[in-house]
Amino acid sequence: MRDASTPDPRDTLDAVGELAALARIIPRLPESAATLLGPGDDAAVLAAADGRYVVTTDMMIHGPDFRTAWSTMHDLGWKAAATNLSDVAAMGARPTALVVALAAPGSTPVPELEAFADGMRDACAALAPGCGVVGGDLSVSSVLTIAVTAFGDLEGRAPVTRSGAGEGDVIAVSGPLGLAAEGLALLFERGVDATGAPDATAAARLRAEHPEPLSAQLAPRPPIADGTLAARAGATAMLDLSDGLALDARRVARASGVGLDLDGALLAAAGPHALTGGEDHSLMATFPAAVAEQGLPGGFVAIGRVVAAPVDAEGRAVPAVLVDGRAVDERGGWDPFAEWSGQAG
Amino acid sequence: MRDASTPDPRDTLDAVGELAALARIIPRLPESAATLLGPGDDAAVLAAADGRYVVTTDMMIHGPDFRTAWSTMHDLGWKAAATNLSDVAAMGARPTALVVALAAPGSTPVPELEAFADGMRDACAALAPGCGVVGGDLSVSSVLTIAVTAFGDLEGRAPVTRSGAGEGDVIAVSGPLGLAAEGLALLFERGVDATGAPDATAAARLRAEHPEPLSAQLAPRPPIADGTLAARAGATAMLDLSDGLALDARRVARASGVGLDLDGALLAAAGPHALTGGEDHSLMATFPAAVAEQGLPGGFVAIGRVVAAPVDAEGRAVPAVLVDGRAVDERGGWDPFAEWSGQAG
Repeated sequence: MRDASTPDPRDTLDAVGELAALARIIPRLPESAATLLGPGDDAAVLAAADGRYVVTTDMMIHGPDFRTAWSTMHDLGWKAAATNLSDVAAMGARPTALVVALAAPGSTPVPELEAFADGMRDACAALAPGCGVVGGDLSVSSVLTIAVTAFGDLEGRAPVTRSGAGEGDVIAVSGPLGLAAEGLALLFERGVDATGAPDATAAARLRAEHPEPLSAQLAPRPPIADGTLAARAGATAMLDLSDGLALDARRVARASGVGLDLDGALLAAAGPHALTGGEDHSLMATFPAAVAEQGLPGGFVAIGRVVAAPVDAEGRAVPAVLVDGRAVDERGGWDPFAEWSGQAG
Repeated sequence: MRDASTPDPRDTLDAVGELAALARIIPRLPESAATLLGPGDDAAVLAAADGRYVVTTDMMIHGPDFRTAWSTMHDLGWKAAATNLSDVAAMGARPTALVVALAAPGSTPVPELEAFADGMRDACAALAPGCGVVGGDLSVSSVLTIAVTAFGDLEGRAPVTRSGAGEGDVIAVSGPLGLAAEGLALLFERGVDATGAPDATAAARLRAEHPEPLSAQLAPRPPIADGTLAARAGATAMLDLSDGLALDARRVARASGVGLDLDGALLAAAGPHALTGGEDHSLMATFPAAVAEQGLPGGFVAIGRVVAAPVDAEGRAVPAVLVDGRAVDERGGWDPFAEWSGQAG
């Protein structure tokens, strides 16, 4: 009997070939309710009911973006879908469809590619029902690489950009702050073997012990539906927290020409990574005070207030992020160019 | 004085960082006339005037898909745009926009990334004016990887799929047949050094001597505008010839349940790679005979006739490609999984 953990050398991408592998993967992918013409031709055709569509693209690379000892292929399919859905939701749009280009080593077992497809399907079903995969590309590469482009429907509304935050608005977040970074810190600390290399057994044990931070890092559940709820409620600005609250809030501050004053006690309660931890894919939005008084939509919780941009010594307004009224300069987040060690694992 | 061919070690992706590199690349990219909200937020918003949009995605990987000794970064930007525009055109749509995800080694000189952007800009200007880049992602990877997703506007028309070819239709092609494969054969034969490794100097000399096949391979010029001309003229089926005429024509034969009978004398005149050479990105379409009698649109030239599917020994119809009435089984094309040697260069 074959050990379940030993891949069958006759069932790899190289051995099976691109077309046969695709024939096994495609049926597992979720269908999109927006499909007018599905996969199988030179291109797909999608409906854009209000004459517009939202588009975002993102790539995940083995090494700087994930370790295969820590992430299962199901995790990677899930995360590739979830992070792109989150960018669509951050515009106030409902995600409708994805296309995915996957490049994998020829030695990759086809069941691993099936698990990747299952991860995309499960993420769409859980986070954005009706959203599905309408096209893709399968290639061979020595570096596992995933490129997803996601689409959304604004349903007649204006997009919620980063530039609309106004003085007096309430700043709110839906989803965790710093939980994904807590998971990553645990993995780097304890998801490794004696030599410090990423280790699948250690990671699996860690995940059982600390399911919340580990899942936040490896298979995040962004509050996709809260994107449209925020837009309907009148959010003035919104974005996906991918690079950490400090860095992402500064983007809103600069685009809107304001200060974003965060509540230090709430950040402290959220834990040590709340201000600088990346990859939460929570939504940060600003709402008029009158909206907040009526009750914030979905899972949004107030974390601060939009104020006038602080003024520097020469009297110039300098949009910035503040905590309890004092400007912060913590960068946070994750810059693979600056920080990637060159290791994979 | 610095030799122009020596990259400045202070001007690489690693040294400059992602944000500064993007600030230099983004202004070089072409703008899209369909843009309602451009790059810089979580996602872009595009117009879909007739309530639909066409989507296709494709990835190019260093090694199986290109050699950097043969292709300049300008070539790669051009080809990544051109091949995706061609898939949009093959639906009978007008290309409107692209998103591009690029992953490059940290040692890549930023001027090389600028040349890549210039290649995309020049391809859009030459092949699909008004089409531009509305979003992207820049990552670091040890393997240069390019993923493009392209969008198009059907302008109220039905998409031209692969399944509409009918008996009696004229088969026509716009663009070369086998020219890109001729270029690739020349490169493998003479674009190499004494050890057989891809060589930039040899490739540049070869390109000066044989500009047509080399450009067809390295920077193809698909007849993008002929896609909409074919649709307006009433094309019954159409596709982009990326895997070679024999293989791609079989796709139309199978989708339409017919035989595609090609003219052997015309194929012979087109050269040895006409039937099996991949990567031409010419358009193949079928037109009702009455349309052909009035004159085929754009650059389309008749190469055969749609016939009833041949019948096998048991009397079953077997959709197939024929040459002068005889079924052919040449596969042709390029399957990186089966054929990639694992080399880059």
